[in-house]
Amino acid sequence: MALSKKPVTGMKDILPEEMKIRNYVQNVIKETYTAFGFTQIETPCVENISNLTNKQGGENEKLIFKILKRGEKLNLQTAQEENDVVDNGLRYDLTVPLVRYYSKNANDLPTPFKALQMGNVWRADRPQRGRYRQFMQCDIDILGDSSNLAEIELILATTTTLEKLGFKNFQIRINERRILKAMAAYSGFPEESFDRVFIILDKMDKIGLDGIKEELVKNDFPQESVEKYTQLFAEIQQQSDPIGYLAEILGEYMGDDVKQWMNEIIDSVKATKASDFEIVFDPTLVRGMSYYTGTIFEIAIPEFGGSCGGGGRYDKMVGKFTGHDVPACGFSIGFERIVLLLMEQGFKIPEDSNKVVYLIEKGVDSDRLCEVIAQAQKERQAGTRVLVTRMNKNKKFQKEQLKAQGYENFKEFFKNPLN
Amino acid sequence: MALSKKPVTGMKDILPEEMKIRNYVQNVIKETYTAFGFTQIETPCVENISNLTNKQGGENEKLIFKILKRGEKLNLQTAQEENDVVDNGLRYDLTVPLVRYYSKNANDLPTPFKALQMGNVWRADRPQRGRYRQFMQCDIDILGDSSNLAEIELILATTTTLEKLGFKNFQIRINERRILKAMAAYSGFPEESFDRVFIILDKMDKIGLDGIKEELVKNDFPQESVEKYTQLFAEIQQQSDPIGYLAEILGEYMGDDVKQWMNEIIDSVKATKASDFEIVFDPTLVRGMSYYTGTIFEIAIPEFGGSCGGGGRYDKMVGKFTGHDVPACGFSIGFERIVLLLMEQGFKIPEDSNKVVYLIEKGVDSDRLCEVIAQAQKERQAGTRVLVTRMNKNKKFQKEQLKAQGYENFKEFFKNPLN
Repeated sequence: MALSKKPVTGMKDILPEEMKIRNYVQNVIKETYTAFGFTQIETPCVENISNLTNKQGGENEKLIFKILKRGEKLNLQTAQEENDVVDNGLRYDLTVPLVRYYSKNANDLPTPFKALQMGNVWRADRPQRGRYRQFMQCDIDILGDSSNLAEIELILATTTTLEKLGFKNFQIRINERRILKAMAAYSGFPEESFDRVFIILDKMDKIGLDGIKEELVKNDFPQESVEKYTQLFAEIQQQSDPIGYLAEILGEYMGDDVKQWMNEIIDSVKATKASDFEIVFDPTLVRGMSYYTGTIFEIAIPEFGGSCGGGGRYDKMVGKFTGHDVPACGFSIGFERIVLLLMEQGFKIPEDSNKVVYLIEKGVDSDRLCEVIAQAQKERQAGTRVLVTRMNKNKKFQKEQLKAQGYENFKEFFKNPLN
Repeated sequence: MALSKKPVTGMKDILPEEMKIRNYVQNVIKETYTAFGFTQIETPCVENISNLTNKQGGENEKLIFKILKRGEKLNLQTAQEENDVVDNGLRYDLTVPLVRYYSKNANDLPTPFKALQMGNVWRADRPQRGRYRQFMQCDIDILGDSSNLAEIELILATTTTLEKLGFKNFQIRINERRILKAMAAYSGFPEESFDRVFIILDKMDKIGLDGIKEELVKNDFPQESVEKYTQLFAEIQQQSDPIGYLAEILGEYMGDDVKQWMNEIIDSVKATKASDFEIVFDPTLVRGMSYYTGTIFEIAIPEFGGSCGGGGRYDKMVGKFTGHDVPACGFSIGFERIVLLLMEQGFKIPEDSNKVVYLIEKGVDSDRLCEVIAQAQKERQAGTRVLVTRMNKNKKFQKEQLKAQGYENFKEFFKNPLN
């Protein structure tokens, strides 16, 4: 038999229980972000392959599901490489499509534009537990605001959402590409090597400061720079005001405005007196994507090992499409991880209690059937959820099944009415 | 510049105004179908190519977006045909994936299973006005109910949804594959030619009964059969009880249960005294897909030329996956057409009136910023939608823009507070 019952490798069917939780989380996200003035939009799931392979996506560009050309445009005989046979691909994130969207539609959008996107993305990653090749991303982005009000609003909208979903004691870690760079420059690393340094720094969680030192040396970075760099990280850990300390030490490498920029974000968020989370400066935070130009941030939830969302400022991406830079900043919340966690915690959606099952015996005559259907429809109009179904031979088992679905009330309609 | 601002050919960006209407329509659909006991599920957008090209999809199988194999599995050098280089494809409808889903997960689902699906599908159709290569489908299906209660519930759920969306005077047209076949058999067409006869009959709307006659003859069908067949259609038009008439004339070709089956569906729907639409028997209704085995139906809305959704019974498709047939019946509502119509009618979503804009002047000091942000957050917690944004130099224009987005109330925060 050529037909396969299994979903495609690495993708999953969503059963009713999970679907309810997904809908619930989506609704909380949508409502909260709307209260912050974000506006929902959508882009196609399919993008031009050239947009997806233009080095905006980092490692994700290796994981694209590519779409075959169609009709006359496809010529397998003369094809030499992949690019000869594909024209489109499935989007691997929502940021590149958003920037394309904004570049095209900016005239019809307000300034600044606060976008909310909820949509699937695809990555042909190695399948592993809890990680799928199709997954939902929920992003908010603010385009056209060069001030740190964008960062503040993004962080508050995201943390408010997490709180509404019942999460506590989570952490927002925040850093600045300008601080990352200043620390590297101050230590004497040449600018062209920054990205390689940061990739190593990004392993702090796993290998610690000594591991970083070792790996920098192993990668032939000058001993002196490595020493100065790791020393700096060690010193920051001792400071009560690490940003102020860095501003002083790094001097003109960092610029005084960066200190004010960061402090305003952190202090404003703290000023809301949200007690369920903390926001902390983390000079070791790197974030993978090379398109970030300024602030970067990440959510850490203690229940998870890793991050549960993140984002940052990417002021140079719109310019790649239009030739004119537009300031932009975004925050992606880890939708799939949140759903997974709620499921593991046995989270139950409060169900509508006003519901009833009509069980109709087989052989009920046509007139009676009409009456019953009309009655069901009337109950629905009055606001009751009515499931109309045939009465099975094993009625007891059927009712048990229905009770498991949350139905408590039954009305039975027999072939030979008793009354 | 290699980056393109345009969406992929035939697909579209969804702007905020349309998005609001789409969300509204989706919510009405979801709420109404839930009140009928349907449960939402989801399948991946990507399916195994073998499932998509197994003759369940009719003409749609020619329109599949196919996905290139990845890594070592892809060998362009030795590839002879498309199937050598693709392993997956984007789904062209929600029915084939649903049946695969049910085949795999039936043990975890209730019987009968009432499924609601809302999701994108893709077809590489020739682009034309109002028709896109990515579009949303909203399907309800009942699996495991062999009785006509399935048809009745599907039709009532769909018509109730249309009424809630404000549509009036629409029509549900209904037919039965068994009647279609009986009429053809009675007229003397051989069974293997039925599908070709029905393809011609399907053109009734466009070419009329005389056109049908002409085209049947042109296709070398026996004159006598063509005569008898078209005569039958002419006669039905005169009848006040066309189903009863056909049951009498067609005799054993049709079977008496078909009459009761159809009348129960029609009478039950009428018994709900829904005044906004009518349900009519249409013996010329064919529906394209060859997988239908029984009842078929279609929505006709006068504002549209063509159909705005449809469906039918397909009792043999689960068996193709599992070897065991399961009765199944579905109804798809024309989501994109509904959205298009509401947009053309200038439909406006009632907006939340409880909202305010905080305009913050550039240069407001850090302490003041913290105060303002905390105040905004407090208002949000009290249920107000608060848009916090920088005050532009041209404040008048900025306010006009914001008013166009529905904001009426403004609070302004200046660098040098007046009070």
